Amino acid sequence: MPIYQAPTRDTRFLINEVIKLESYGNLPGFEDASAEMIDAVIEECGRFNSEVVAPLNQSGDQQGCTRHADGSVTTPDGFKQAYALFREAGWGTLAAPKEWGGQGLPHVLGFMAEEYLASANQSFMMYPGLTAGAVNALLAKGSPEQQATYLPKMISGEWLGTMNLTEPHCGTDLGLIRTRAVPAADGSYSITGTKIFISAGEHDLTDNIIHLVLAKTPDAPESSKGISLFIVPKMLVNADGSLGDRNAVSCGSLEHKMGIKANATCVMNYDGATGWMVGEENKGLAAMFIMMNAARLGVGIQGLAQAEVAYQNAVKYASERRQGRALTGAADPAEKADTLFVHADVRRMLMDAKAFTEGMRAFCTWGALQSDLSHKAATEVERQLADDMISLLTPVIKGYGTDIGFETCVEMQQVFGGHGYIEEWGMSQFVRDARIAQIYEGTNGIQAMDLVGRKLAQNGGRAVQAFFALVDTECAAAKAKPELAALAGQVEAANSELKAATMWLMQNGMMNPNNAGAGAHPYMHIMGIVSLGLMWLKMAEVALARLAEAPADKAFYEAKLVTARYFGERFTPDATSLRVKLAAGCEAMMALPAEAFARG
Amino acid sequence: MPIYQAPTRDTRFLINEVIKLESYGNLPGFEDASAEMIDAVIEECGRFNSEVVAPLNQSGDQQGCTRHADGSVTTPDGFKQAYALFREAGWGTLAAPKEWGGQGLPHVLGFMAEEYLASANQSFMMYPGLTAGAVNALLAKGSPEQQATYLPKMISGEWLGTMNLTEPHCGTDLGLIRTRAVPAADGSYSITGTKIFISAGEHDLTDNIIHLVLAKTPDAPESSKGISLFIVPKMLVNADGSLGDRNAVSCGSLEHKMGIKANATCVMNYDGATGWMVGEENKGLAAMFIMMNAARLGVGIQGLAQAEVAYQNAVKYASERRQGRALTGAADPAEKADTLFVHADVRRMLMDAKAFTEGMRAFCTWGALQSDLSHKAATEVERQLADDMISLLTPVIKGYGTDIGFETCVEMQQVFGGHGYIEEWGMSQFVRDARIAQIYEGTNGIQAMDLVGRKLAQNGGRAVQAFFALVDTECAAAKAKPELAALAGQVEAANSELKAATMWLMQNGMMNPNNAGAGAHPYMHIMGIVSLGLMWLKMAEVALARLAEAPADKAFYEAKLVTARYFGERFTPDATSLRVKLAAGCEAMMALPAEAFARG
Repeated sequence: MPIYQAPTRDTRFLINEVIKLESYGNLPGFEDASAEMIDAVIEECGRFNSEVVAPLNQSGDQQGCTRHADGSVTTPDGFKQAYALFREAGWGTLAAPKEWGGQGLPHVLGFMAEEYLASANQSFMMYPGLTAGAVNALLAKGSPEQQATYLPKMISGEWLGTMNLTEPHCGTDLGLIRTRAVPAADGSYSITGTKIFISAGEHDLTDNIIHLVLAKTPDAPESSKGISLFIVPKMLVNADGSLGDRNAVSCGSLEHKMGIKANATCVMNYDGATGWMVGEENKGLAAMFIMMNAARLGVGIQGLAQAEVAYQNAVKYASERRQGRALTGAADPAEKADTLFVHADVRRMLMDAKAFTEGMRAFCTWGALQSDLSHKAATEVERQLADDMISLLTPVIKGYGTDIGFETCVEMQQVFGGHGYIEEWGMSQFVRDARIAQIYEGTNGIQAMDLVGRKLAQNGGRAVQAFFALVDTECAAAKAKPELAALAGQVEAANSELKAATMWLMQNGMMNPNNAGAGAHPYMHIMGIVSLGLMWLKMAEVALARLAEAPADKAFYEAKLVTARYFGERFTPDATSLRVKLAAGCEAMMALPAEAFARG
Repeated sequence: MPIYQAPTRDTRFLINEVIKLESYGNLPGFEDASAEMIDAVIEECGRFNSEVVAPLNQSGDQQGCTRHADGSVTTPDGFKQAYALFREAGWGTLAAPKEWGGQGLPHVLGFMAEEYLASANQSFMMYPGLTAGAVNALLAKGSPEQQATYLPKMISGEWLGTMNLTEPHCGTDLGLIRTRAVPAADGSYSITGTKIFISAGEHDLTDNIIHLVLAKTPDAPESSKGISLFIVPKMLVNADGSLGDRNAVSCGSLEHKMGIKANATCVMNYDGATGWMVGEENKGLAAMFIMMNAARLGVGIQGLAQAEVAYQNAVKYASERRQGRALTGAADPAEKADTLFVHADVRRMLMDAKAFTEGMRAFCTWGALQSDLSHKAATEVERQLADDMISLLTPVIKGYGTDIGFETCVEMQQVFGGHGYIEEWGMSQFVRDARIAQIYEGTNGIQAMDLVGRKLAQNGGRAVQAFFALVDTECAAAKAKPELAALAGQVEAANSELKAATMWLMQNGMMNPNNAGAGAHPYMHIMGIVSLGLMWLKMAEVALARLAEAPADKAFYEAKLVTARYFGERFTPDATSLRVKLAAGCEAMMALPAEAFARG
């Protein structure tokens, strides 16, 4: 069975030494987060996920969910018990607001818990995971009554939530939705329509499931300007908070998916179900983006999380499997063959994964800090900068993180040779599960367009200029240190490519918007490379400073410096080729008529 | 259900217009291949695979194979009937030698039939597919009696064959195998051991299955110098050719795999089975490489084939699915949304796939011609050049072809958004099936090492120098034509990177062989890019010449020119970043001790 060991040492390095969370103790919500308390939370969270949740990952994939004739759904063996323990321990409440029963801790810690949970079991993670988006929407747009009715139980995990957007004929283009909401005399609405791909749409983990549903009121304008958001509980809630009648919403069937098989991905039928509008009529898209933005960060973390667990299993295999001899002479002459570790091409794959997962974890941790600071920093200037950063980089965390996360899973599967293709070894599941993250919560093509079409130009390019400055400052500081000069030069070069690509898009996207569309995907990847480069500079600087103190765990910091060097050598060169591709523009890409793609 | 339409127009373009097969009519075996005959074979083969084999692909994936209590294996519904039709039509015999009942046609046509079959149904293709390798080994190393007993029935398809190499503890490092072959008084051997991952090891398609098995005789030297090859029929064959007793070989279980589920991948138990040595004692590895080389080309073709069928389905979806509006204004104002085709990022993925599949098909077709010419060209100089080319490029066809083939399947799945993740749409199967091709017949890491560690240096680098010259000549000729100058410049630049990478490996691989290992994978990919660039130059030249004649199907040739341009813009830039990565060498890659990879 595959293993999972939460990377607590790396998490502590990032939180305590790189972003220095404790130094923000003056900010509201951060005062409880002492270094000791943080370390205890990290260790306990790691233990819980490694011991309780991870062992259900492979069995869940094999068993899947079962829909019964009455439309009820049973999750795989052990999920219900594990969810009860998860809820009891409050792992879903770390970063939720105290006002509604959460622990009010920094998002930095909430992110850590999400990563560990997603590594341990991505299907399991998606039951509480989608709830977080629904909670965010209610926090931002719900009426006081809606908040009081739903938030305490959703935050405690007594009830779970869903996000109902997609319909059979539309996903990306939500202006096309057909689900109708007809107002009733009592202020509620009657919701009718079919939603598909609804994660955790029906299950046996909780007594109630709170659906947030996009629908159109009668006479709503066509297009996405005519969408409203509704709250539709599976069980109606009585005035005293107890459960009332069953609502007219049900699971019509379960989807047969490539992966995340232990999550109940449902076709949901609304047959005149009772719902209540959240926020204003026809302003549902804005509310949806609140759900989406949190969810997108969560999905980026899934890319990291699957890459991490795949990496750990590949490392284990590489250290146990003996095959062939080192090119430089037998490493273990007493054995019949050396371990896979001696082979450069295996090492290449493992170092790729190490450089990506550690860089990406830093990026997510730093991103979570920006998210915290955007709300809680002392000054408006700091809050705005942090908000600019996390808004700009959310599509990069999601798009780049899940693209490279998937590629990493594939490479880790490759380390296993033929055994990687056999389900018993578990590597196939990591690949299959990781694949969805490139697709849902907005495909990575949509993320790239969000970045290039919206985020770049906002406020006259203020955010991207701030990002350039941040990287430039870091590079300049690092260049002064001989040990970091090479990496600083490589990241600086990648940042120059990013600037050139930005300039190119500004100039050519105006002329023909398809130039922006054609360059969006490479642009997102260049920004991903520069972001991880920035993180590796930060980590290398800390490692260098620590090594000067001759610490006990010297090897940990030395490995950071080697991996930083590897990142510079093997990740940054792509920034140039991506910029060259981007600068080719859309002409050849868009030149052919649809018929020219047909075969015959 | 997914569609498949054999790309016959493209095949005819390559065979008749690009490599001009008819012009080789003076060579033995080629005289029968008139343009008319070739076209008829292509069309009929395309029809057969589209109509008979492709419809069984998805049902085969869903149903899989069944092993019964007695060890017998049933293939999915319809496979037995389709195989009977396949055999009757002689699709496996096109390029087999006439002497043993084959049609003796050029390998160029055999390749075409392999591609169509692998696109239609990769699992199905692997039943006759593995037989070809076994046939090659018997042709090269079998005794006259072995050849007479087995070849006619294996070539006709009455019996199918397998290749038994891998054991639970070893795949790549075959020196470690434990299967034993003890000589008997009558000249036969008693074979005992366990083999795993045996494709088509047991099934119900034929009355007999001919296993070619690697084993060690008593007192054989350790290492791969002590391996011998044995022929072990499932049913012993009587002197008159009729079937005798059941041999002591059986299927112990079927592997649970990520894909190719309709192929019976078996654990094979040899319990004192009767076998006969093929070729010389302890020279089994050489015989195995004969099997392997043909099989590696076949696997490269699978990479192309899965990319092709995935592409076709993505094109169909992109033309039917309406979502969003073109950035340049509504393309179909009468509809509620435009087709996916209008979106640049979708177009990017489709053009990537178009440029890869058409370039890769040309590469395989041209490679098959080199394989033919290596045996049949009129002069020794021509035969040697052709042999140098196909030996050098076989690992590139396998490694680059399956890496990019898999990536293409993933991108085509991405075109479908959420539906790509749902099994009913078929895209998941293409991804899952394509994944194995990067692993089997030598992982792509092994291909890269074969290229860099063996092929480059053979005969003082004669082959790679000839390849450089071939590309230089093509570029020089193309540069003279204004329409091709840009692409010629891009391919020339990529070829310069390949030369620089070669020089770097020569200089640094000597100093430390891990530098060769660390650079092998990027090197293989640079050579893949240059090879497809060479092919796109050849195709563009033909298209340009045809367009000057104002042909009826002008659009076909115009599309070739646009796609060639796209290839130059979007594929060749990677040659530079890959060379920069390669030139970083092995230092950072190999610096860390194994413990540094652990988490905690």
